[in-house]
Formats: sequence, structure tokens, C-alpha cells
Amino acid sequence: MKLYVLNGPNLDMLGLREPELYGTTTLADVRAECERVAAELGHELFFAQSNAEHQLIDWLHDAFHERAGVVINPAGLSFRSVPLLDALRMLPTPIVEIHLTNIHARDAAHRDSLVSTVARTVIAGAGAYGYELAIRAVDRLAAPA
Amino acid sequence: MKLYVLNGPNLDMLGLREPELYGTTTLADVRAECERVAAELGHELFFAQSNAEHQLIDWLHDAFHERAGVVINPAGLSFRSVPLLDALRMLPTPIVEIHLTNIHARDAAHRDSLVSTVARTVIAGAGAYGYELAIRAVDRLAAPA
Amino acid sequence: MKLYVLNGPNLDMLGLREPELYGTTTLADVRAECERVAAELGHELFFAQSNAEHQLIDWLHDAFHERAGVVINPAGLSFRSVPLLDALRMLPTPIVEIHLTNIHARDAAHRDSLVSTVARTVIAGAGAYGYELAIRAVDRLAAPA
Amino acid sequence: MKLYVLNGPNLDMLGLREPELYGTTTLADVRAECERVAAELGHELFFAQSNAEHQLIDWLHDAFHERAGVVINPAGLSFRSVPLLDALRMLPTPIVEIHLTNIHARDAAHRDSLVSTVARTVIAGAGAYGYELAIRAVDRLAAPA
Amino acid sequence: MKLYVLNGPNLDMLGLREPELYGTTTLADVRAECERVAAELGHELFFAQSNAEHQLIDWLHDAFHERAGVVINPAGLSFRSVPLLDALRMLPTPIVEIHLTNIHARDAAHRDSLVSTVARTVIAGAGAYGYELAIRAVDRLAAPA
Amino acid sequence: MKLYVLNGPNLDMLGLREPELYGTTTLADVRAECERVAAELGHELFFAQSNAEHQLIDWLHDAFHERAGVVINPAGLSFRSVPLLDALRMLPTPIVEIHLTNIHARDAAHRDSLVSTVARTVIAGAGAYGYELAIRAVDRLAAPA
Amino acid sequence: MKLYVLNGPNLDMLGLREPELYGTTTLADVRAECERVAAELGHELFFAQSNAEHQLIDWLHDAFHERAGVVINPAGLSFRSVPLLDALRMLPTPIVEIHLTNIHARDAAHRDSLVSTVARTVIAGAGAYGYELAIRAVDRLAAPA
Amino acid sequence: MKLYVLNGPNLDMLGLREPELYGTTTLADVRAECERVAAELGHELFFAQSNAEHQLIDWLHDAFHERAGVVINPAGLSFRSVPLLDALRMLPTPIVEIHLTNIHARDAAHRDSLVSTVARTVIAGAGAYGYELAIRAVDRLAAPA
Amino acid sequence: MKLYVLNGPNLDMLGLREPELYGTTTLADVRAECERVAAELGHELFFAQSNAEHQLIDWLHDAFHERAGVVINPAGLSFRSVPLLDALRMLPTPIVEIHLTNIHARDAAHRDSLVSTVARTVIAGAGAYGYELAIRAVDRLAAPA
Amino acid sequence: MKLYVLNGPNLDMLGLREPELYGTTTLADVRAECERVAAELGHELFFAQSNAEHQLIDWLHDAFHERAGVVINPAGLSFRSVPLLDALRMLPTPIVEIHLTNIHARDAAHRDSLVSTVARTVIAGAGAYGYELAIRAVDRLAAPA
Amino acid sequence: MKLYVLNGPNLDMLGLREPELYGTTTLADVRAECERVAAELGHELFFAQSNAEHQLIDWLHDAFHERAGVVINPAGLSFRSVPLLDALRMLPTPIVEIHLTNIHARDAAHRDSLVSTVARTVIAGAGAYGYELAIRAVDRLAAPA
Amino acid sequence: MKLYVLNGPNLDMLGLREPELYGTTTLADVRAECERVAAELGHELFFAQSNAEHQLIDWLHDAFHERAGVVINPAGLSFRSVPLLDALRMLPTPIVEIHLTNIHARDAAHRDSLVSTVARTVIAGAGAYGYELAIRAVDRLAAPA
Repeated sequence: MKLYVLNGPNLDMLGLREPELYGTTTLADVRAECERVAAELGHELFFAQSNAEHQLIDWLHDAFHERAGVVINPAGLSFRSVPLLDALRMLPTPIVEIHLTNIHARDAAHRDSLVSTVARTVIAGAGAYGYELAIRAVDRLAAPA
Repeated sequence: MKLYVLNGPNLDMLGLREPELYGTTTLADVRAECERVAAELGHELFFAQSNAEHQLIDWLHDAFHERAGVVINPAGLSFRSVPLLDALRMLPTPIVEIHLTNIHARDAAHRDSLVSTVARTVIAGAGAYGYELAIRAVDRLAAPA
Repeated sequence: MKLYVLNGPNLDMLGLREPELYGTTTLADVRAECERVAAELGHELFFAQSNAEHQLIDWLHDAFHERAGVVINPAGLSFRSVPLLDALRMLPTPIVEIHLTNIHARDAAHRDSLVSTVARTVIAGAGAYGYELAIRAVDRLAAPA
Repeated sequence: MKLYVLNGPNLDMLGLREPELYGTTTLADVRAECERVAAELGHELFFAQSNAEHQLIDWLHDAFHERAGVVINPAGLSFRSVPLLDALRMLPTPIVEIHLTNIHARDAAHRDSLVSTVARTVIAGAGAYGYELAIRAVDRLAAPA
Repeated sequence: MKLYVLNGPNLDMLGLREPELYGTTTLADVRAECERVAAELGHELFFAQSNAEHQLIDWLHDAFHERAGVVINPAGLSFRSVPLLDALRMLPTPIVEIHLTNIHARDAAHRDSLVSTVARTVIAGAGAYGYELAIRAVDRLAAPA
Repeated sequence: MKLYVLNGPNLDMLGLREPELYGTTTLADVRAECERVAAELGHELFFAQSNAEHQLIDWLHDAFHERAGVVINPAGLSFRSVPLLDALRMLPTPIVEIHLTNIHARDAAHRDSLVSTVARTVIAGAGAYGYELAIRAVDRLAAPA
Repeated sequence: MKLYVLNGPNLDMLGLREPELYGTTTLADVRAECERVAAELGHELFFAQSNAEHQLIDWLHDAFHERAGVVINPAGLSFRSVPLLDALRMLPTPIVEIHLTNIHARDAAHRDSLVSTVARTVIAGAGAYGYELAIRAVDRLAAPA
Repeated sequence: MKLYVLNGPNLDMLGLREPELYGTTTLADVRAECERVAAELGHELFFAQSNAEHQLIDWLHDAFHERAGVVINPAGLSFRSVPLLDALRMLPTPIVEIHLTNIHARDAAHRDSLVSTVARTVIAGAGAYGYELAIRAVDRLAAPA
Repeated sequence: MKLYVLNGPNLDMLGLREPELYGTTTLADVRAECERVAAELGHELFFAQSNAEHQLIDWLHDAFHERAGVVINPAGLSFRSVPLLDALRMLPTPIVEIHLTNIHARDAAHRDSLVSTVARTVIAGAGAYGYELAIRAVDRLAAPA
Repeated sequence: MKLYVLNGPNLDMLGLREPELYGTTTLADVRAECERVAAELGHELFFAQSNAEHQLIDWLHDAFHERAGVVINPAGLSFRSVPLLDALRMLPTPIVEIHLTNIHARDAAHRDSLVSTVARTVIAGAGAYGYELAIRAVDRLAAPA
Repeated sequence: MKLYVLNGPNLDMLGLREPELYGTTTLADVRAECERVAAELGHELFFAQSNAEHQLIDWLHDAFHERAGVVINPAGLSFRSVPLLDALRMLPTPIVEIHLTNIHARDAAHRDSLVSTVARTVIAGAGAYGYELAIRAVDRLAAPA
Repeated sequence: MKLYVLNGPNLDMLGLREPELYGTTTLADVRAECERVAAELGHELFFAQSNAEHQLIDWLHDAFHERAGVVINPAGLSFRSVPLLDALRMLPTPIVEIHLTNIHARDAAHRDSLVSTVARTVIAGAGAYGYELAIRAVDRLAAPA
């Protein structure tokens, strides 16, 4: 299976950005971990980040055409982006939403994810290790029952 | 009159995207219909789609300079995009908002359009045929009384 | 197809009532336009107005028995009449809701139509011309796919 | 005791209206059942239906003068009719409110009955059999302690 | 000036209905008082009551044509009737809303009058004497400045 | 009976303050009118204005000791002053609340009067003439039944 | 059919507890009545009361295994117990919810029953007699159509 | 490390309960999986289920004394149990909350978990496989940095 | 007088649990203080703690039969337990609610106590010393006036 | 320690004001009790009352300079006075808020005290005796740990 | 131009009051800065502070008569004082509202300023330096266009 | 110090766009003013505008790396853009938010700025001159104390 791991706005600053909240792991570290796990499970990985909503939507359209599984950390777009929600709703394959922090315990602006209403699985608060859990979840969910 | 027909995020997937909800008509089919009606009414048509909010805003600035009539299907941007709202509010010419589905009967995230607070006319739930109705409405609204 | 065009409270005062908001077209003018369009499309028209909720419900029961298409301008009953909502929900044929003004841009008491949650298509803010659009929409929606 | 069984808007369509929700029993069937039970309990029955709020109010005024017990299915008027609420509040005799479906499990527009704030007993979701239960409840509540 | 004094649902029961709340004065007593005051001020009086929303709307249309002043006790229709609100909004002459009880101090269902948003003057809680105050207010408001 | 007519903050500016909203009558004019009506009805008048919440409360304590009737225009204190509300609740005599404008039709900050929850009668929107209506209402309400 | 009649917290105090609200009938009286009606209808009765949420859940699991009909008065657990709601949702047999008082007319803490969103029938405000009505409703609902 | 895997109300019915929602895996299957993973990671497992809030609290007190890691599926207690929240808040060790379904996409009664405001990690919607992910997350979170 | 001092969930952990919030006093210390004060005032003390809602309800039923005064620290059950509320409402003797911390200044989940709506006196934020204040308050409230 | 006991609006009327709610004890009686308890505990007492918000603020500024302990019954100012809240927040010494009645069980306007968000201890519903409890609480809270 | 710089409750405590929030600058320091800037710009300064709402209102009435520009830090009165709002609305000259802290980022009670709805310019969070910015803004706004 | 002055959507239309609201100054005029003030204060200026959220985020990342001060007019993105909020929260240098109009006095869609919750200073309603005030504020805030 082709596997998309998509990252939203400001995640390019991981490691630099509010390290007391997000830790010192960089996005390059995360990508390396994801490549290791995807390889172990036999999936081809597409890993990308963008600050632009439309770029994420375009990648989701690509995933639709490739019938890929999707792991997405929508970051700040989680909470109010209806276009992203609509793009995700199209996908027939499992979607796993991942957040580095436990958004459910944060302030009002970072608490209610629209994306969670359409994701199959949500993993929040396991830090960068959550990406590994998310890839394993997509792998398991996509397996024939 | 110059006539802009603008389409927002994910409408490039029309026909592929949730066909039980949006039907099997493609955006190319919609464009062909719009060209037919615009020609019948003697208007020059600019028909475009983008997944990017800023692209739609740029086109609306163009429409402002050309004093064009505007038909817009803002799709997922209808509900929370204040920048789009602001760009539309500038226009002195009639704006007709069109939705393929009846958004008023949908879930909370797709129900209250900000754009409707500034549009002159709103047409929702007539499917792709709504584009024809919308162009006829702009034509009529722009006519001298 | 039999076609019902129904009008709710105070629309008998059209042309007299707040002309700066509703224009100077009278309901007789609207009826004439509707008859012209219905004839062009080959439909039999029943056009009526009432200030009474129960009269509108009775007409909708008639439409149910005749399997007629329905265009309705529920006017002030749009916003809070559950009996009207229930009567409309019974109909297997397409319902098009029409408002002269763009209710979505009005005050709180005139903004959220209950009827819109059960209509197939909603057209608001095209003035009296909206009736023609509405009849064309019913005609198209009722046609075999 | 004189016993009023009153039925609100659209209940004349019972059996025809959304049978998957309301069943195939007709209002004539309901009336026959009510007559049987009222006769068994020795009460004189007045059974009626109207789509008009004012007709229901007039019947409640009659019930006031006759000091009758009242079973009422206010249907779509349950949720927002303050005039009906006011008419019911006048009655010194027990009022039993009956709904065919369990309104508490329905959508927002059909969930919170104003009438329930003034009824003595509320029976919802027992289908047409609820009328029999309601008549038995009025009979029991009106009996001397 | 022609003067309309209109009374809404259940006011025909005045004197019988919840006398601890509304007192023992009947609507006939109120009419007599209104006739006395109207005569004193030199106005022609039309005094009427109905339980039907549509009847009240029709009378308001008459008042529109006669350019009459209006005193209205909308009773239970005060709180949710948008058609009544729309009918009142048409009138160029002063409207005085009157309630026997102080609705502002009652329960949620009887507290926020829609009609008050369009009335010129509101008098609540002066009992039947409020009708005299209301007529005097219309008389004064309609006088040339 | 002793009669208190009390006026809240900014009413000393009457005639100067937003004349398009409040008119050009001054508070001295209002006092003269009140004196005339009180004399006609045989009441001793205490007429005063203050911008200080505590001054109004002291006067209400005086009214309590004198068992006076009270007409009050609480102005900006109407909406959130619980101390004033408490002071008014002590009074065994009738309270009439008066507003120059129809507060029910104004913006949210001037719409829901706390004072109205404890007043016996509320008169709003009759301009300065409302004071005369209010004094007449107190006179009537205080009369033996 | 096996028939469960389950009673929630504080119902063991029936007859002692707030008799002006709940009457003087005891739970033993209620059981006797239920046994009489169940016997008349040919059902085996399990009648029980507990103050513990988990005990009620265990009994509902038993009812699931026995495919029993259920009458439940969840008392104070009606309003906020999601575990009870989940246990009830499992049952394929009809559930009838019964309340001694009309909860819809009570204070905010006793008004919105979560259990009602999953019950088939709700009977409230018929006092202890409501148990008989509830058993008859289960009997009728479980009968082959 | 000692590892507690705690399960709340109705999870003893797993496999029997709403299988279209929760699947056919039983709690015994889940326990076997957890034992396998715990053994692989070198942790001692305490696995238990209860329908009683107080039993879960007692186990959490035990975990406090043993300084154990905790995986908890609070089921129906997630949403409104402040006592459970308080018991969890005491723990110095990492807490991972697990739900079989994606609660964020469910109805209002099953959507906002109080427990999530105090958990370190939340995993929802990965089915029974989520337990394995949760144990791996606790293992990782408890490891020295 | 018999005096019940009842303690809800997690209070058995007092001294261990979040000492920066609740202090290091243990429940055994609190009991000793209560015994000292009760003895000084000549009351027989029943002091107990439970994590189970139903156990607290049973003790309150006992208090009802003994006509005992009640001091209760409902802890996490304060905020959402309607069964506890109902059990307390039965008692004819004074109830004093005690909280170690000032719950009114805490987060949303610990702020609005249902129990406070039925308690006679509420003491919050005086730490363990609040128990002495509470016992003195019950003693005074129960004394003949 | 210097001890301030401050009383807000309308408390000078204690004994006269709604005695069925507040009892017949006067503020002079309360002062005498406070003097007795303060003397017993060895504190110097400043006891005062004002209807003016600014007077209470000035006294709190004095208390700030004297590092006095404060008992305050803010009465009607409890609920919306941000200036009072700010004045209290300055104080480094313990604040005990006291209400004669149990405000938590009263109407919405008297229920949510802003002052409680900054007080250390809140005592409500113990009548005039609550002042003694409050003074004892300040004494204890101010003692060295 | 005459320039009023008005300061609300508790600002006399500046430098003493919560210095970690408001800094150590005193109001005398602020006055000195304001005098320097006003002199530079050629304006006559009236600088004052009061804890009394009515005093601030009187000063605003003075400013009205002198057609002065106004800089106001309403402090705790910002959020709920309608009388202050009304006094400000009278002024034809520009009003600049100043807050030492960024109120938009503070708690709910200090976030939504009523005064901001009538001010021309709002400056928040620039500390004491904000006064200089505010005076410069009034100067510019009052200049002929 | 490097100084970023960033402008959001539609500000490229300044001078053309709703001149009665935003004035006739163009963005080029604003830039010239900013360059003059920055030069006077000795700062290097980066001045830019974009209709794209992601472009603004990229510029803020640049500002982060350069440790620049930031003045931002987020325009329509102020109100709902969490990605912008997150990008701003990263910055260790002072942020000043500037709006041409007083957004606090505008309609609901333009009133509550998310950006204000993270800005150090907010200046709204001083027109184009606000940019000068904002640059002076950044200059002052960034100076060593």
C-alpha cells in the first residue's frame, strides 16, 4: 500500500517551536522514523509538509487517486478548515489523525478538531512516537479482516 | 457584461467525489453548460476553480477591476473564510452564491454560509443545474430596472 | 406534472408592503409570470396565497394526493412552523423554497428557515424573478434522470 | 365524565404520512379504538382533528366549560405554540399528552414539547396503542383519591 | 383617526381564565372601557378578538388600508409569530403593544415578545387599565408634533 | 400618597444627549409635567435624578419608609445593577418602570432590563409622555381594589 | 416473555420521600400491582430496586441474555448516566421508561432524560399507575405485529 | 513496571454488544493480546473490568501505591465522571486513554471525554488493536528520556 | 442529636492526593478533629467515607430514619450526581456541605455543585478546619430558634 | 491582626428587608456578635456597611495598607462588580466571603458570585451566625502554618 | 484642544497593585508623562482618577461641554458599566480607550470591553507607554482632515 | 532591530476597497509612512502584503530566525486562523497587532481576533496612522528595560 504522511502548518519548525510544548525532535527526525516503520511494514511512503491548505488538499486528491492510506497531522488546520474536512471525506481508505500533544487538554482554540469527525482513528499526546503508532494503525486497519 | 463563475476547494473532484451526494457530473460538464448559457445571454465568461483561498481572492480583485458579475460556489470556504467575505464585499456588481447541495439541510459544519451574508442571491440544492439558474439571475439582476 | 406555487402570510400585500425591501411587483404580477413559465414547460399550475397556516397545510395535503411538484414561499411561517415542516416532509415530489429577499443576510428572526431543512432546493434574494427560477428547478428536478 | 381526544396538524394523514415512522393505522382506526375504551370506562367521547391552531383552542375552551378530561396529541404544535399552551393551562381537569413516536429521541425541532410543561401525564412512543393508555390514565387521574 | 384594538388567542376567556393571574374583568368590560376612552378622544374604534393568527393579520391589513392607529394585545402570539411581526411592520401609524400582566417577569415562554421589536410603545402589567393607557398613548403619538 | 419619580444616570443630559434618539425635551420639562399630573391626582411628588447608584438606592430606602409609590427610569442601571434590583424588591408599594425609548427594540446591551423582573408595570417607548402614563398607572394600582 | 421492572436510586424510599411530590404509595405496593398485571398478561416478572448504577447495569445484562422486555424507572440516573444508556442500547427487546412525576415540567436537573433517547416508549406523570401502563405497553410492543 | 489495563462499564459485553459498532472481539481476546504485548515489553500486567465506578477508583488507588502505568478505557464513565477524573489526576505515572471507536465522531453524549483532559495520550478508533498501541505508548512514555 | 459526617470519592487518599492542593492532613486526622468537636457539643458522631455513590445514598437514608444532622463533603460527586441530590432533598434536618478547597475558584468541572442547590449551608476553602466550622453550623442550625 | 468586616448594598436594611428570606436580626446585632468573637480571638475589628461600590473599594485599599484580614458580604455587588473584584485581588491576606442565604440555591441573578473567584473561603446560608464562622476562618487561615 | 485623561477604579493603586501584571510605574509617573506629551502637542491636559462610576460620568459630561478629546482607561468599569458607555456615546470628539495590559488575552471577566464598542481607537498591552500613544492618536484624530 | 510589517488579505486593495470604511490611503502610502518612521527610529524595515495565509506564515518563520519585531495587520485572517496564531506564538520578540478600523465595534464576523490573544499590543481604529503608533510601540517594547 502507498502511505501518505502529511503535516500541516508550522510543523516545519518542529524542534525550534515552543520546545517546552513540542519537544526537540525535528521533522527530519520524524520522517526518518516513519521511513523505518513503513519499510518494516512493506509500505511505500510519501512524507510531506506544507503551510498551505491548498497544498494539503492537492496531496489528498493524489492519495485518492492512488487509493493510499493517510496519516495526517493537520496542526492548526485541524480546528476550522472545512475544505480539508471535505478533501478527507472523499477517501475510501483509512485515515489516522495524529497530534503531538493531547489537544483535548489544551485551550479552546486547539481543542475541537473538525478532522476528528471524519478520521477513523485519532492518536494525540504520544509525541513524535505517535507517528509510529499511527502508521501501525493504518497498516492494521487496511489489512483484510 | 463580463461574467465570472468561480469554484472553490475540491470542486475539481466533482463527479469523483462522494457521487451519492454530489452526482456524476464533472466540472468540465458544468463549464460547458455555463458557456452555453453565457453565450445565449451575450456575456463573456471567465470560468475557473481553485483549492486556494488566495487565488479566489485574486480573481475577485480582477472582477472588481472589470466590474464583472460574479457567480461563486465557495464550497468549503463558504462557512468560515472572512478574507473571502471581505473580497466579495468590495464588489459593486451582483453576486450570486451557488451550492450543488442544499446546505441548509446539512450538518453543522456545512450549514451557515458567511458568504450568504453578502451575496445578493443564494441558490442551493438544484445540483449542477443551479449554475444555469445562477447565471440567469446575475443577468437579470444586472439589467437596468 | 401538476405544479403548486404556494405563498404564505402577508404576500397578498406584495407591492404595498415595505416596497424598499420587497419591490413594487404585486402578487398578481407574480402569478402571471408563473403562468407563463408553467405553460412554456407544459405544467398545470395551481397558484394560491393564504395568511393561514392550516390552509397551506391543506393545500400541501392536496399536492400529496396529486403527486404535484411544489414551489413554496412560506414567508413568515418559514422560521418556526413545525406543522408546515411536517406537511412538507410527507411529499415524495421535489420541493423548491423561494424567498424574495436573501433571508440569510437578514435579522435573527428572519434568518434560519425550518423549511429549508426539508426543501430540495432553496432560492433566495432573486426578487420576483426567483419564482421563474424555482419553477424551472422543479421542472428539471422532476424530470427522469 | 366527558372526554376530549384532540389531534393536531397532519394527523388526518395518518397511515399515509411517513408510514415507516408513524405506521399504517389510520385516524379512523384510532377513533374506533378510543370509542371502544371510552365506552368500557363509561365516558362520553369527543374525538376530533384539525390542522388549525385556533380550532384546537376553541375545542379546549369547550372542554373548559364542560369540565372535560383531555387527551391531546398536539403534533407539530407541541413545540412552539404558546397560544395552545395558554389554552391548556386554563383547564382544571387532568391533561394527558400523547405522541405516536418517542419525541425525546427525535431531532431538535421535534424534541422539546411546550405542552409537556403543563400536561399532567406524557405518553410518547407507544404508537396508536398510546391513545388507549392515555384514556386509561385520564380515567384514573380524574377518579376520586 | 380610526383606532384598532386587537386581541389575540384566549382573551375571549378573560375573567374565566386563571383569574388569580388575569383578574375577573371580562373582554366585554375592556371593550366598554375602550369605547369610553376612544369617544372621549374623538376616535372611531374597531375592537375585536380572535384565536386565529390569520384573522389578526387580515385585520392588520385592513388597518394598513385605513391608516388606523393600532393597540394590540397579541397574547400567546407575541412570542413566536413572525407572520404577525411582518404584518405589524408594514404599518406607518403608531403601534402600542399591551399586556395585562408584566410579561418581562414571567417564565421563559412568556417573556421575550417579538412584537415588542416593532411596536412603538409597550405597556405591560397595568391590568385592564393598560388599555386606557395604550389608547391615550396612540392618541398622543399620532398627534402632529 | 407620596410619589417618587426617580431618574438614573445621564438623564440630567436629556435634551442634549443623542436628541435624534431621546428628543429635545429636558428633564426640567419632564418634572413640570409630572408635577402637573401629580397635582391633578392629589399626590405629593418627589422628583430627582442622580448618576450615582448608591443615591438611587438611598432614595428607594426613603420610599420604603414613606410607603411611597415609585416611578423609576433606571436608565443605564436597568440592565445589570443587582443592588438596585434588591432595593426595589423591598418595596411593598407598586413600582412602574419607564423608559423613553422602546428598549425591547434596541441593541443587546439595552434590551433585557433586570428591573423589569421586579416592576409591576413597564412602559417603554412613549417618549416623555410615558411619565404621565406611569404616574396614572401607579395611582390606579395603589387604589383599593 | 420474561419481564424486568427495574427501579433506580432512592425509589426504596417511596412513600417516605417527599410525599407531596411522589405520593404515599410504597415500592412494595408498586410491586404488588406489577405482579397482578404481569400475571394477567401471562408474563414472568423480575422486579428489583437498587441505589447502585452497576447493579442496574448487571440486571440489564441479564435481561439481554434472557431477551426480556424491560420497564425501567431510572430515577436520578436518568439524566446523566451514560453507562446506563449504553447498557440499554444493547437490548433488542422493547424498553419502556417510566417516571412517577412529569419530569418534563420539573427543574433543569430533572428534565432531560438521556434514557429517553434510547427508550421505545416514555410514560411520565401518571404516578404509580404508570407502572401498569408501562407493562401493558411492553406487552403490546413485544407482540407479533 | 507494573501496568494496569482497566476497563469500564459494559465492556464485559464486548463481542455481544452492538457488534456492528464494536466488532466481535471479546474482552478475553483483548486480555490475551495485552498479555502478549506486556510480556514482550517486560511489564507485569493487571487487567480488569468493572461496571462500578468505585471499583475503578479503588484500582486506580492501587496503581497509585504501586506507581504503575495505566491504560484505561473508561467507556461510559469517560464523559461525566468527576470522581474518576480526580482519581486519575493523582497519578504521577503516564495515563493512556483508549477507546475502541472514534468517540470524536459520535453523538453528543459520547463525544467530550473528561478523562482526556488529564490523560497524557488518547487513542480512539483503532478498535481492539488500540490496546496494543496504548501499551506501547505507556512503555515509551515511561522510559527515561 | 446524631450527626453524620460523610465523605465522598477519593477522600480516603487525603494527605497523599495532590498535597499542594489538599494539604497533608489525613482523613484520620479529620475524623479525630470531628470527634473532638462533636463531643464538645454533645453530639453522637457517625463518620464515614466511600468511593461509591450508592453507599453514600444508603447512609443518607439511615440519616433520614435517625433524623440526624448531616455534614457532607461529596467530593467529585458534588457536580453531577442527581441520585445524591435526590437523597439529600429528602432530609428534614439541616445539611451542611463542606469542601476543602474553594471550588468556586476552580476549573469548570469542579465549580458548580448540584449539592449546593439543596444544602442549607456551604463552606468551601477553609481546608480541614472547615469540618469544625461545618459541625458548629449544623449544631447552631438545628437548635430551636 | 486588624480585621475588616465589610457589608455591601442594602445590608443596612437587615431585619426590615424581606425578613422571610433574611430573618429579623439587624446589622447592629451582627456587629455586636462580631465584636464579641473578635475580642475572644484577640483581633481589632473594623465593621462597616455602605451602599456605594467606591466606599467598599476605599475600605479594601485601607485593608491593603493595614494588611488586615477581610470578611466581606458583598451582597448585590457580588455578581457583576469587576472593580470590587480587582480591589479584593490586591490583598495578600485571607478573604472570607459570607452570604446570609445560600446563594447557590437562589435565582440566576444571585447565584454566580464573581467575588468567590478570588475569595479564599466562602460561607453561604448559615444566616447571621455565618459571620462568626467567617471570623473564625480568617483567624485560622492567617495563623502561621 | 482640551484633553481629558481619565482613569477608573483601582488605578490609584498603580505600582502597588499586582506589579507582576501592571508594573511598578505609579499613576503620578503616568501623569508626568502625559503632561510632557500634551505640552509637546500643545494641548491643555485634565488628568484625573476616581473609584466612583458617577465621578467619571460627571467628568465626561464636563468633557462634553468643553468639546474635549478623551483618553480613558476605564479599568474594571470597562466590562459592564452601561452608564459609562452612555456617557461616552454622547461625545462628538474622538475617544481613545487605553488598557495597560492586553485585555484580549486575559480571563473572561476582563476580556470583552463594552467601552470598546463606542471608542474610536483602542490601545491595549503597551503598558504605561500606551498613554503616550493614546494622546498622539487623539491629537491626530481631532486634526482637520 | 529588523522590523517586519505584514499585511493580510485584501489590503492590496486599500484605497479602492470600501473607502467610506477604510479611507483613500493606499498601501503604498502606508509603506512610505512606515519607512519614514522606521528610518527615524533606526530600524531596518521589511514591509509586505499577501492574500495567502501560508505566505504570511513563511514570513513569520523568517522573522523568527531573524529575531525581528513584528507589526501585523492580519485583516480577515485575524478572526479564525489558528495556523497564523500558532506561527505568531513562536516569536520571542514583541508583536503588535494593528487594524485600520475599530474591530471591537464591528459585526460578529469581524470582532473577536484570535491574534489578539497572542499579541503584546493591539491598536485598532486609528486608521493608517495606527501603523506609526504600532512601530513606535514595537520600538519601545523591544528596548532594554
